[in-house]
This record gives sequence, structure tokens and C-alpha cells, in this order.
Amino acid sequence: MSRTFWFEGGTDGQWNVASMTTLRGEPLDPVTHVKVTQSDSTRIHQIAWRLAGITSNLRYTDGAELATLRARQPDLGRPAATHAALIPIKKTAAWWDMPQDERLAIFSRDSRHTAIGLDYLPQIARRLHHCRDLGGPFDFLTWFEYEPSHEQMFDELLQRLRDTAEWRYVEREVDIRLRASVWAGDAIAGG
Amino acid sequence: MSRTFWFEGGTDGQWNVASMTTLRGEPLDPVTHVKVTQSDSTRIHQIAWRLAGITSNLRYTDGAELATLRARQPDLGRPAATHAALIPIKKTAAWWDMPQDERLAIFSRDSRHTAIGLDYLPQIARRLHHCRDLGGPFDFLTWFEYEPSHEQMFDELLQRLRDTAEWRYVEREVDIRLRASVWAGDAIAGG
Repeated sequence: MSRTFWFEGGTDGQWNVASMTTLRGEPLDPVTHVKVTQSDSTRIHQIAWRLAGITSNLRYTDGAELATLRARQPDLGRPAATHAALIPIKKTAAWWDMPQDERLAIFSRDSRHTAIGLDYLPQIARRLHHCRDLGGPFDFLTWFEYEPSHEQMFDELLQRLRDTAEWRYVEREVDIRLRASVWAGDAIAGG
Repeated sequence: MSRTFWFEGGTDGQWNVASMTTLRGEPLDPVTHVKVTQSDSTRIHQIAWRLAGITSNLRYTDGAELATLRARQPDLGRPAATHAALIPIKKTAAWWDMPQDERLAIFSRDSRHTAIGLDYLPQIARRLHHCRDLGGPFDFLTWFEYEPSHEQMFDELLQRLRDTAEWRYVEREVDIRLRASVWAGDAIAGG
């Protein structure tokens, strides 16, 4: 099973765009749909942008956190989770130049990144895609899925993360909110 | 400056192959030369294999180790360092499935990986290329350069690493020894 996912912003896809908000840095061109795919097949719709990411090993999560995550985190593709968000992020050169222990201290001790995420499980499902080493414009593409009634909970999760010390190292962030559409293309890739 | 490097095994290149030794897993096809390049230009020589890797942020090195590394490590491309080695490595799924703290404990506390490398500075220059998330057959491509008189020292470095707990998670390793050749192609990419 491939670990690579593509997120195509364009005129068709499984997800309708409800809003695109640029929090820092350059925006992405506005689109009406996002298609999530694992196949590099011929594209018949108009694409404004295409972001690739890959699921990978954990970089900061410790054993205790991982056990809790595995116990609580839901799968993607829950039928009731018709709201989604794609949040591409790029961190500063200063972040990447730090040694592992300094990044870990900011991520975990100072910012409690994993602990904050755990507070919103199992309601907010999540999949992290890495892309810094794939050469694209972002470092991470995080994908979230939740029920419409949990939108406010999701906003709170994001606000808490954006208030952390870690977020001082975020230089580009776009928040794309999505709604499941009836779509006749590929099977939904989030399952 | 691009962080991506290609290592092409074929019939031409800046480096003559002195030996290729497969320590674990599948061998690579035998070749006479290795070309190191950062350009994806047209290739006029016969290539048996082509491995891509990218320099990236440190995953296990702490601040104290990084300061020592920066003080001691030489640049690549030293004129007297006419011997080189390319060592592609793949680690097991069990390694990658571990949380960060367990991998760090094996890498650093149990295996003293960085500390062992420091014992051979400044004689043995090194550049680590990541490739697990690029989709190739290996996880890492490590490149070493040293003077001919330091070959035995280099062998000792490798033996110490291969005796560590970390190496129990290495499932494929090929040790390619190289000698600088007189070559009229691209400028040497290691400089």
C-alpha cells in the first residue's frame, strides 16, 4: 500500500470547498473542489494546485502517547464525518536547523502538541502527511475529518495549537474547510 | 540550493568502483563507476541503478552533539580525500513502527551512533541522505570521503556501527568503495 497521497485543488473531487483562509504567508489559488487520490492517473478536471504528501514514521511521539493515540484515534472515512479540513503548513528555516532535542522540547514540553490533539479524540480524525523532503511548497499537509456538529470543537483545537510556542515557527498556513460531495470519480481515498 | 542528490551506478562518473559488498539483503547490480549529481540532466552513460537521496533535518542529534559535529566535521571535496564510500541502508518495518523515544534510545543510548561517528572526525567526512519517503529501495544513502591512509580507520568505524543494537534493524546494506577518477563530466558534486 502506497504511503503517498495527492490533494488536488480544482473543479471536481470528493470534497466541496466551504472556505479557504490564509493564516500566514502566500495563499493558495481559490478552488471549488479538492480531490484526494493515491493514483497518479490522468486528470480530466482543471487543477489549480496539486500537493503531494506521504505518511511516515512519527518524529516526536513517545511510546505512552502512541499507545493512547492508537486506543483513541478513529479511522478516516466515517460516514457521519462529512466535514473535513486540509491544512498545509510550512515551518521556518530556524525550526529545521534546530537539533532534535530542541524541536522536541518546543513541540512536546512547551506546546503539548500531541496532548492537545488527544483532547479531541475520537471526534476529530486526523492523518499527517509529510512533504518537506518531497520538494513542494509546504512541509506538512494535515487532513482532518469530523461530524458537522464538531466544527466548533475543531476550531478550538486549531486555536489552541496556533497559540503554542511551536506555532511561532510556522511561516505559511492555509486552512481549507471541506464538505463531502456526491462524486462519481475514484473511491474516497480516506477509507 | 537543492538538497537532492542522485547516485548513478553505471559506466562513467567521478568515482571508480573498487568493490561492492552486500552485507544484508539484495545486492545492487555491479557497476564500474558511480556518478554523483544534483542535476536531472540527460544521461549519456549506461546506468544500472540510480538512487536519490535528500539532505534533511537531524532526527536524533541533540544540541551538544550538533555543536561538536559542527566543530569537527570537515567539508566534502577535500583534494586528498580520494577514497569514498556509498553505503545504502534499509531498516526493518519494526524500526519504523517504533515511537521516536524508542528509536532514539536504541540509536543514541544503546548504540552511541553519533558518538562513534565523532571518534572518526575530522578524518572521515560524511553526508547523510534520506530516501525512505522518496519511494526508493533504501531508507538512507550515506556518503563518506577520506584519505587512502584512513581506509583501516573507516573499516573500524563501520565495524563498530555494525556491532550495535541499532544494526539489528538493518535489513539491507551494500558497501560500495570508490576511488576518485579523472573525469571530464560535471563538476564534482561533493564540494
